[in-house]
Amino acid sequence: MTEVATARRSRITPEREAELYTAVLELLREVGYDALTMDAVAARTRSSKATLYRQWGGKPELVVKAMRHSKPGRIGGIDTGSLRGDLRTLASVEDDCTMERNSDLMRALAMASHSNPDLMRAFKELLIEPEMNEFKQVMQRAVDRGEVEPDCPAIQYIVHMMVGAFATRTLIDEAPPTQGFLLSYIDAVVLPALGVPTS
Amino acid sequence: MTEVATARRSRITPEREAELYTAVLELLREVGYDALTMDAVAARTRSSKATLYRQWGGKPELVVKAMRHSKPGRIGGIDTGSLRGDLRTLASVEDDCTMERNSDLMRALAMASHSNPDLMRAFKELLIEPEMNEFKQVMQRAVDRGEVEPDCPAIQYIVHMMVGAFATRTLIDEAPPTQGFLLSYIDAVVLPALGVPTS
Repeated sequence: MTEVATARRSRITPEREAELYTAVLELLREVGYDALTMDAVAARTRSSKATLYRQWGGKPELVVKAMRHSKPGRIGGIDTGSLRGDLRTLASVEDDCTMERNSDLMRALAMASHSNPDLMRAFKELLIEPEMNEFKQVMQRAVDRGEVEPDCPAIQYIVHMMVGAFATRTLIDEAPPTQGFLLSYIDAVVLPALGVPTS
Repeated sequence: MTEVATARRSRITPEREAELYTAVLELLREVGYDALTMDAVAARTRSSKATLYRQWGGKPELVVKAMRHSKPGRIGGIDTGSLRGDLRTLASVEDDCTMERNSDLMRALAMASHSNPDLMRAFKELLIEPEMNEFKQVMQRAVDRGEVEPDCPAIQYIVHMMVGAFATRTLIDEAPPTQGFLLSYIDAVVLPALGVPTS
């Protein structure tokens, strides 16, 4: 699967791919997931629909890949030498404006996925699972360094903690998630739960 | 405001009020928030629309009050003598079946509220804020007992932790929130973050 997908994607340049993803997210913000059509994407990006389907398979995959591309959360690539450093770097990759825009998009997509099984599947396979695997790598390195006990029960909840904070921020505080909020939450909740000193 | 609302509600008996709320939640599960009409509620409950509007003001208030009534989360009434006891009791009031049903309804309502400002306002004023105040009371008692340091930075995030776990469970684990999950999360994340021993 991965090899096939890579082979298919290699037919267009990374620059062109980024351009397409940007256009997809623009359209998504303008009309929402349900009203977004492959025709509109083709028109906006001057592509043929055949190309879009050949490269991505369909609208759910294209939209989710665009979301994933926009998130600088290549957590696996972050390796600062400490768990606190890794998590703080992760929380600081997006500036507050980008974070607010992505938070709105993610919420809209998560909502739409509840009535679109294909989108739900793509959302999980192409976005949630890769992010969970990257978090697992960050945690594994922390365990290997001796920062976190291998049997610490909070390890299994790292994604619930991080995504939960992000997801509830707007509802509870009537404020978008910001770097300041996430850094504060990491020091107040995530690291103490994992038994890691915050200073 | 509170006195007026109480005076209005006292015109119907608690039993009749519970019956109405049950019917509203049934309808909500059947057709969703957007398609639910006050006409349908009136028909299902053999009430007049005038009565419904007089008692509740409108559809957003009626729906949110029904949700709140269905949640046994009268957290303020729980006082076991320890924070762990209070949180575990709170997590155990609903059986797993009720929790799954309520979780689905809450998610649907939270989603609908993003495109319905009146529902969002009612959701916040009549459901989120009262729950936050009850959590604050639980936390204040823990501080008064000396279980939690008054300046513990995780205190301000108690609602983010609890609601975040609940909200992300389905997406991350493809499983509904259960008592077992919440009890495990409380011991693994919430209590350690607050510096409270779990045994």
